[in-house]
Amino acid sequence: MMQFQLTDEFIEQVEQLIANNDDETLTSLLEEFHFADIAELLHELNTDEATYIVKLLDSEVTSEVLIELDDDYRERILDNLTPSEIADELDEMDTDDAADIIAELDDDVQKQVIGHIEDEEHAADIVDLLRYDEDTAGGLMAKELVRVKESWTVAGCVREMRRQAENVTRVHSIYVTDKHGKLKGRLSLKDLLTAPGRAHISEVYIPKVDYVNVHTEAEDVARIMQKYDLEAIPVVDDNGILVGRITIDDIVDFIKEEAEKDYQMAAGISQDVEADDGVFKQTRARLPWLLIGMFGGLGAASIISGFQEILESFPRILIFVPLIQATAGNVGVQSSAIVVQGLANNTLKGNILARLFKESGLALVNGCSIALIVLLISHFVFHTSYLESISIGAALISVILLAALIGTFIPIILDKRGIDPAVATGPFITTSNDIFGILTYFLIAKLILGF
Amino acid sequence: MMQFQLTDEFIEQVEQLIANNDDETLTSLLEEFHFADIAELLHELNTDEATYIVKLLDSEVTSEVLIELDDDYRERILDNLTPSEIADELDEMDTDDAADIIAELDDDVQKQVIGHIEDEEHAADIVDLLRYDEDTAGGLMAKELVRVKESWTVAGCVREMRRQAENVTRVHSIYVTDKHGKLKGRLSLKDLLTAPGRAHISEVYIPKVDYVNVHTEAEDVARIMQKYDLEAIPVVDDNGILVGRITIDDIVDFIKEEAEKDYQMAAGISQDVEADDGVFKQTRARLPWLLIGMFGGLGAASIISGFQEILESFPRILIFVPLIQATAGNVGVQSSAIVVQGLANNTLKGNILARLFKESGLALVNGCSIALIVLLISHFVFHTSYLESISIGAALISVILLAALIGTFIPIILDKRGIDPAVATGPFITTSNDIFGILTYFLIAKLILGF
Repeated sequence: MMQFQLTDEFIEQVEQLIANNDDETLTSLLEEFHFADIAELLHELNTDEATYIVKLLDSEVTSEVLIELDDDYRERILDNLTPSEIADELDEMDTDDAADIIAELDDDVQKQVIGHIEDEEHAADIVDLLRYDEDTAGGLMAKELVRVKESWTVAGCVREMRRQAENVTRVHSIYVTDKHGKLKGRLSLKDLLTAPGRAHISEVYIPKVDYVNVHTEAEDVARIMQKYDLEAIPVVDDNGILVGRITIDDIVDFIKEEAEKDYQMAAGISQDVEADDGVFKQTRARLPWLLIGMFGGLGAASIISGFQEILESFPRILIFVPLIQATAGNVGVQSSAIVVQGLANNTLKGNILARLFKESGLALVNGCSIALIVLLISHFVFHTSYLESISIGAALISVILLAALIGTFIPIILDKRGIDPAVATGPFITTSNDIFGILTYFLIAKLILGF
Repeated sequence: MMQFQLTDEFIEQVEQLIANNDDETLTSLLEEFHFADIAELLHELNTDEATYIVKLLDSEVTSEVLIELDDDYRERILDNLTPSEIADELDEMDTDDAADIIAELDDDVQKQVIGHIEDEEHAADIVDLLRYDEDTAGGLMAKELVRVKESWTVAGCVREMRRQAENVTRVHSIYVTDKHGKLKGRLSLKDLLTAPGRAHISEVYIPKVDYVNVHTEAEDVARIMQKYDLEAIPVVDDNGILVGRITIDDIVDFIKEEAEKDYQMAAGISQDVEADDGVFKQTRARLPWLLIGMFGGLGAASIISGFQEILESFPRILIFVPLIQATAGNVGVQSSAIVVQGLANNTLKGNILARLFKESGLALVNGCSIALIVLLISHFVFHTSYLESISIGAALISVILLAALIGTFIPIILDKRGIDPAVATGPFITTSNDIFGILTYFLIAKLILGF
């Protein structure tokens, strides 16, 4: 396909047209564009220019554009719109997107905007969705879906579906309910295409249907939809009444955000910061982790001070501190990453004792390989004594073993206590491994060198 | 929904039934299960037991089960099946899944299996898919799709679709081609439901359709489908002939794998290793990165040895080496993670000079905060002299600045040269920052303390 490429010339042209208030050329220029491309364009303009375009184009288009924009940038544009203008945009959106956007507004603006939404049923649906926590099925679902009653005929159903389909962007499944609205099953479009017109829905529908409750956690919804390869899943309330559906595209975003959150945590960044956020926001996300590392470093400094005799009698032991520290950190991060990912994917099996043995075995293989190389290099290149070399090698094996066990079990313990194990990766595990690693190093050196 | 929970009792029951060859009870017990749940069960059994179940159940079910299994485990089960048994399973699969599985087999087995596939058209489609690289649109696509010709009437189209839909699990879009098979546009089910039966397809179809070429890289396919919120995208060959389609569920898997790969790289693990892989496989994935860290540590050791005078005159400077190293590592990982994620999401904007200024500003804010705290603590708690404290503080600011710049620009440079910037995160950036950090520290100390 032709990939859309945003050129500097094009951006300049748009800016010029806005400056000239040349609405006609601007409209016909942007008419051909996909809303995702217009969103990309708006990000390159300043807020006033972006607002100009949002006000200019049809809200059928701009409602989709607004959904695509970054949260922060969208908020700034919405600040420039009146409640009635915002309501026009929300009128065109699916209820789930509208609810997400309205939730970002101040309480008093929210009320005004809702009052201006023309379609009252749509407004009521949005208000209803605002009740749910954003990390639950209720917070993810949309109200738009195609529902039919089990008592209808196939022909009547097709007629009714044509009417309902107007409001639904994509028909994934047709949900079948009893007369009280209780979810009974589903009907595939394929079945509907092939069933005789006079048959009743109750004769042709599939009574087996996966569903989630409004209070099911988003993470579980993602897991279920992935595991069972579902493109949409119906959502029921506590009485089994069908209240909404979640589609796979909402889940794709959720999966991506979760993966990014884990990655950022491992890198020591509080979630939700991007390369283009301001210096202050980035400092707030990054400084706390650096402070943890700093206190770890100060802890290491006081451990080294505590072994005053080494500083005096065996100064060559000190030059390998960075090696010990780097190894402890790397092993810890590796072990914790594997466990965190195993927990996230639900692929961590077997009991804790078996895992202990396995991690120990793995650490011993790696530890002995590295210890042997370092022992030889330290003795022949850095001219450490036999005993010093043996201290360094023995310390490396112990440090790798210890770091692997800390890296493996801290995430498992956190997970058992209901804490997100991803917080244990990155600076947290590196810092604790730095301290324990250096302490182990000096204790073993003291034991072997006998000072 | 009722979440499926695999209990130890249930596994034991299944194992007992297999040991007793009680096929009847086993079949009726597993009949009710979703294939994804059966896959979960098989992972808990040994290979022979799993093979027993695969042979026992209907291939309509087991073909789906096999797709769900981990690659390694599936290979072991397939080793226990004859080419004709494997062919029976592939007969039931969509072409994309069948091609993925057949690609894992040895060349001679592949040929035998293909010879045993009953449906010759299906076999030809699979062979055709094997030609494509797995990281391209051709490698992701399935041959199953609903296609109609623009010259048909709506009523004729519905008849023809009923026939084609038999082979297609999920109908996302109906693709419209000219009489030569060239992709012309698409038709939504909604449009088909609402158009009059006598109308020609050419009058009702949507000529605007996103598509990709068979050689488009998988990464780009994922980006396009996400950006434009597509649930399926048609694939054309170099002549514009419609040859397949890619659905969002294949992309979900791809997105997840990519995110995990980045995370594992940042943690210093070669891709594709899981908590339950064997010790040897894990060592192969982890040891290389530990060796990089080891050589970095040895480099640091030789830098410290080079500043012999410090070891003698200012031993207190040495106790802050872990602090310098930890800070350099943490800052580097933070900076690189933000850039790598920005590159992956295409959100990194602006020119390189602006980024240089911004990262420097950010590093100075963080650097000065940490330097001030450490300067005070080192002087009052660790009793370093004024000049020593100033050396430490000045070194921290420089090291943080340097680490941030290395962390930011190495990924950008790699990306410009077409190398995956994710390799630059983790041990790679930590190690280079360790070395440069410690070197900077001693150079500044030498400058200020004047030894």
